[in-house]
Amino acid sequence: MRNSFGHIFTITTFGESHGPAVGGIIDGMPAGIMVDLDFIQHELDRRRPGQSNLTTARKESDTVEILSGVFEQQTTGTPIAFLVRNSNQHSRDYSNLRDTFRPSHADYTYQTKYGIRDHNGGGRTSARETISRVVAGAFAKLALRQLGITIQAYTQSVGSIALITPYQQLDLSLAESNAVRCPDAEMAKQMEQLILDVKQQGDTIGGVIACVIKGCPAGLGEPVFSKLHADLAAAMLTINAAKGFEYGAGFAGTTQRGSQQNDLFTVEDGKITTKTNNSGGIQGGISNGQDIYFRVAFKPVATILQPQQTVTKDLQPTTLQVQGRHDPCVLPRAVPIVESMAAITLLDHYLLNKTIHL
Amino acid sequence: MRNSFGHIFTITTFGESHGPAVGGIIDGMPAGIMVDLDFIQHELDRRRPGQSNLTTARKESDTVEILSGVFEQQTTGTPIAFLVRNSNQHSRDYSNLRDTFRPSHADYTYQTKYGIRDHNGGGRTSARETISRVVAGAFAKLALRQLGITIQAYTQSVGSIALITPYQQLDLSLAESNAVRCPDAEMAKQMEQLILDVKQQGDTIGGVIACVIKGCPAGLGEPVFSKLHADLAAAMLTINAAKGFEYGAGFAGTTQRGSQQNDLFTVEDGKITTKTNNSGGIQGGISNGQDIYFRVAFKPVATILQPQQTVTKDLQPTTLQVQGRHDPCVLPRAVPIVESMAAITLLDHYLLNKTIHL
Amino acid sequence: MRNSFGHIFTITTFGESHGPAVGGIIDGMPAGIMVDLDFIQHELDRRRPGQSNLTTARKESDTVEILSGVFEQQTTGTPIAFLVRNSNQHSRDYSNLRDTFRPSHADYTYQTKYGIRDHNGGGRTSARETISRVVAGAFAKLALRQLGITIQAYTQSVGSIALITPYQQLDLSLAESNAVRCPDAEMAKQMEQLILDVKQQGDTIGGVIACVIKGCPAGLGEPVFSKLHADLAAAMLTINAAKGFEYGAGFAGTTQRGSQQNDLFTVEDGKITTKTNNSGGIQGGISNGQDIYFRVAFKPVATILQPQQTVTKDLQPTTLQVQGRHDPCVLPRAVPIVESMAAITLLDHYLLNKTIHL
Amino acid sequence: MRNSFGHIFTITTFGESHGPAVGGIIDGMPAGIMVDLDFIQHELDRRRPGQSNLTTARKESDTVEILSGVFEQQTTGTPIAFLVRNSNQHSRDYSNLRDTFRPSHADYTYQTKYGIRDHNGGGRTSARETISRVVAGAFAKLALRQLGITIQAYTQSVGSIALITPYQQLDLSLAESNAVRCPDAEMAKQMEQLILDVKQQGDTIGGVIACVIKGCPAGLGEPVFSKLHADLAAAMLTINAAKGFEYGAGFAGTTQRGSQQNDLFTVEDGKITTKTNNSGGIQGGISNGQDIYFRVAFKPVATILQPQQTVTKDLQPTTLQVQGRHDPCVLPRAVPIVESMAAITLLDHYLLNKTIHL
Repeated sequence: MRNSFGHIFTITTFGESHGPAVGGIIDGMPAGIMVDLDFIQHELDRRRPGQSNLTTARKESDTVEILSGVFEQQTTGTPIAFLVRNSNQHSRDYSNLRDTFRPSHADYTYQTKYGIRDHNGGGRTSARETISRVVAGAFAKLALRQLGITIQAYTQSVGSIALITPYQQLDLSLAESNAVRCPDAEMAKQMEQLILDVKQQGDTIGGVIACVIKGCPAGLGEPVFSKLHADLAAAMLTINAAKGFEYGAGFAGTTQRGSQQNDLFTVEDGKITTKTNNSGGIQGGISNGQDIYFRVAFKPVATILQPQQTVTKDLQPTTLQVQGRHDPCVLPRAVPIVESMAAITLLDHYLLNKTIHL
Repeated sequence: MRNSFGHIFTITTFGESHGPAVGGIIDGMPAGIMVDLDFIQHELDRRRPGQSNLTTARKESDTVEILSGVFEQQTTGTPIAFLVRNSNQHSRDYSNLRDTFRPSHADYTYQTKYGIRDHNGGGRTSARETISRVVAGAFAKLALRQLGITIQAYTQSVGSIALITPYQQLDLSLAESNAVRCPDAEMAKQMEQLILDVKQQGDTIGGVIACVIKGCPAGLGEPVFSKLHADLAAAMLTINAAKGFEYGAGFAGTTQRGSQQNDLFTVEDGKITTKTNNSGGIQGGISNGQDIYFRVAFKPVATILQPQQTVTKDLQPTTLQVQGRHDPCVLPRAVPIVESMAAITLLDHYLLNKTIHL
Repeated sequence: MRNSFGHIFTITTFGESHGPAVGGIIDGMPAGIMVDLDFIQHELDRRRPGQSNLTTARKESDTVEILSGVFEQQTTGTPIAFLVRNSNQHSRDYSNLRDTFRPSHADYTYQTKYGIRDHNGGGRTSARETISRVVAGAFAKLALRQLGITIQAYTQSVGSIALITPYQQLDLSLAESNAVRCPDAEMAKQMEQLILDVKQQGDTIGGVIACVIKGCPAGLGEPVFSKLHADLAAAMLTINAAKGFEYGAGFAGTTQRGSQQNDLFTVEDGKITTKTNNSGGIQGGISNGQDIYFRVAFKPVATILQPQQTVTKDLQPTTLQVQGRHDPCVLPRAVPIVESMAAITLLDHYLLNKTIHL
Repeated sequence: MRNSFGHIFTITTFGESHGPAVGGIIDGMPAGIMVDLDFIQHELDRRRPGQSNLTTARKESDTVEILSGVFEQQTTGTPIAFLVRNSNQHSRDYSNLRDTFRPSHADYTYQTKYGIRDHNGGGRTSARETISRVVAGAFAKLALRQLGITIQAYTQSVGSIALITPYQQLDLSLAESNAVRCPDAEMAKQMEQLILDVKQQGDTIGGVIACVIKGCPAGLGEPVFSKLHADLAAAMLTINAAKGFEYGAGFAGTTQRGSQQNDLFTVEDGKITTKTNNSGGIQGGISNGQDIYFRVAFKPVATILQPQQTVTKDLQPTTLQVQGRHDPCVLPRAVPIVESMAAITLLDHYLLNKTIHL
């Protein structure tokens, strides 16, 4: 099941950017959950291109059609299939990419692996594939909401402009109040300006998204090979352009002593809690009831509007000059995708954990 | 299959540190591979405690017994079961840990999840669980060797002492020439001194392991949900104390422009190659024939020999003072474990990739 | 993955009979296979209702739309999503079935399991679900054809009218020459008459389908838990109304002695073969190169046009009188479904077997 | 995971009959179940050879060693590994079977598939592999017992001697009172005599085992591809020598009309029940709360003590004459194996079903 993710709550996706549609099947959605279609569409709109001048100006309507698994506004426990038609797919000529490998894209690896590829608009490797993740993530969020689990991601850095304030001191709900999805308004402005500068140069820029999960009960995650953070890492690194994952103290914490990083247990309001949260809410692969906190690194988008040297299938050197509308920075639109993959992983582990006891 | 890893070449592990044995079952090992028992034992010896003054002084003989799947020194294609007896398991009294939660260990999360746990020596969460990974990794390496794929990990940083020289300029084979497993002798000395200092303080320290895979053909990895780097990330983050993963340009690369990070294609010796390798050998989730390069962050070991405040199952505050012999730094012994998980992941994807064509 | 089948070549299906569509996603289809859309549609037509007076007179156009995974008439190795719209779904009023449990249907078990169900036309339990199996089976057949593997099922018995001639003495290609899909014309007539008689009584009748796979190489099947015949059995028993499976000598062979049933090896044309084929082409769970032969029992369709006593959700006794057009016998339309599930299982094991050696 | 079975409660087995040991790993055992080691050993004793004159006279002590997952007599939720040493493995010379293919065994198919095989005593295809199933089944029974679910299999026919009395009219507990495990004492005597006659002729005989599961709640089983009866069929057909499976009315029911076979719903003691149970306790793949009833066909054991014609690896004709002690009939010892696989399947679906709702 190469195009599937999850143990119990699973998502299988399909679709090429210039084929008839992208979509997927959700299997394992709990029965009896109210389906809020407006919310699902709203989540899709958060990842839609053209929502600000920071993203590609392409118009994609991205209206989801639910094909099964919902009856009288409730989930039935049967698979939920959905699709989004590719309305714009005949708008451009990609024939120059049929035999030319774009640098740092998957053109070369697909061609080598399969011996055949749909070269139009990136085919299966297009960012349109993430539509399916957002729809599945929205369904997962509907279930998690009933459990009191909330997920909020935000742009923490763009290039070298980084918001270093710990998330605990931020009002994360402000992330949605600006186009770059950074909860610090001043930082957001600087990030936006950097993205616009980079865009004007026909270049692109990377960054880091942070994600905070609140309300997760202790006990989720399997202790050895499906550690909660390992599954979260896998989930995040399946997103296009993701290059790294860390949770809790992460890479920076490798310079600490155990006496600094250890989270001491204490009792508060009659419940066990920790004085610090360097563990990022996960100990031994299992959630400990504290906030789950992780960060995902995204590289600069590979498609730039500057001429680049490359080669063709026939080993001929050539210069590639891409035209058109592309994202100068993946971060703003990746925020809902990170949240979606987190929601899928959390709900999956919540359900899996139900099988621990008779 | 919570205690299993892999799609085709899979490993399922079992064992508590103070139960009768740890071990596992390898399923999907290709048939007809010569089994070099000395090599397997040698790999186990690389992770064994007591190999230098940088590791715990515990004596564990760790001799592997193969129970099935090997006939006349060759693999038969049937499952390979193996075990390592826990010879030292009655050597200490752990009764003080029965009801007390060690900070930043998995005691609390196990207790909450299962309602029961084997508290002796960490039980299932003990580093002894990694024995099974190293045995399985050794089998995987025997197969990869036939394919010309080699894997070399090394300690890149301990605390703030970091080897910043790019791996291409290092003689990686030197990593095994010192106790800390750093290929730069001068750096190794500094790292060793730091570990000894930390040890003397009854404290612990973290660090980063880098891993380089050479000879991997293009085409391994599934493009969407089992991207090669996503599976590598999951593999690495299932290792005890791992807190982060990045590949290629990773987190540092998020500050770059696309025009800087993109790996331009070129032709060399009649073959397509890239001028740089910021992709870390993986593009679109699929190996591109360049070196695969990734880094894993390890936190400082949670067990320190200083008194720590914590609580008991009954919510009583208490002070924990651990005695005995413990690793002050996980890095030296984690190097073979990182290699093992990489070998398991690579062989798995090599076999999976065989099913792409009729 | 409750709605998925297969190890490597997998099918995930979705859809309720009166929802917008039924369909599925094929994952693991080998790349580079020519896609013959006419053949796929032809297979669908073989299972379509209304093709003769032996089946329900319902008109369902059942035109398949391929949404992904095919590029310039070839498979690309990416997932193949497809759907068939439910064009007739508003034609009838099912409100009487909302709270009433039809005998020997899944109404009661769905309601008990999920607490909610789509009662219109059987919902997810409708025979329309098998459309997805036939489409996936057609893709599998396209691949198997290249390997020289052919699959032919036929109606062996309807009620007590049974074709006892061994398949080796039949011209299986004649199965498609009559509506009941029995390769013996005389038998076919008797079967047809029985079905028409039963239909006139508002009743239904069961029967047995036999299936023969030719050209399967030796070596397919996993020896312990995914024995080829075990996977075939699972595949067949997932078909609506299937009640039993046997292969080779099957149930009848339980009365034989070992000296009668054993298939003696011999050499023919320089190749090892067996003198008899009581093994049904599978020994120790692995194909041995002989014809694979198995039989599937189908119960009489549960929906009859006679009044039946039953109960409602509120435990009230009631009499159910179903109206409309229903199949009096599932056999004729089940023949292509049996073949499809066999094709899916065979291709899956063919691909899985490629991973046995490096 | 070719050597694994199950979705949530899974068993992975290993071992060749003449290697060091056979055994397995149970993953997904619920935490906190009391482990009754005597019961587990008792179950093993039920399948042990040498328990009567109907089975092979081989002495195998078959004492199970639990290696993990049990702490202070309770399951901990971690994997339970176990092994049984092969104490008798050097007792005989199998060199004549190195290059000769035994008729209707898996020698030829293993050799063709893997290119290598352990020919001693059947290697991986030995009936000793079923030890692991019985141990796992015993653990499953310990859990099912708490749920009030009981499983009882019995020998229903040996050769043509068949017990046709419906199970509802039998005292199934009597099955354990005779060596053949048939609950009808008179029938049992006839079956035993037939087995002894066949044994004296150096021949073997097949038969049918029936299995009844009582106390299973409604709702277990997945409606499409993991139908409860499909998983039971797969479970049963993975047992050595199994040739067929049917549930409820099965093959015989194919001659019935729908009006005869349909199970009418009614209310009894304030609960919905069915007047008949032709469904065998499963409707639409989901348990309906009635007794689950199925039958498994077993072929005559392939190893007979009469000379048989066969061929060698080098295509040379030869005559095989097997010596020694072998089972003339697999049925008596297969009864606990059928129960074990049923218990594994039931517990697995019980746990899986817990994930249907939040």
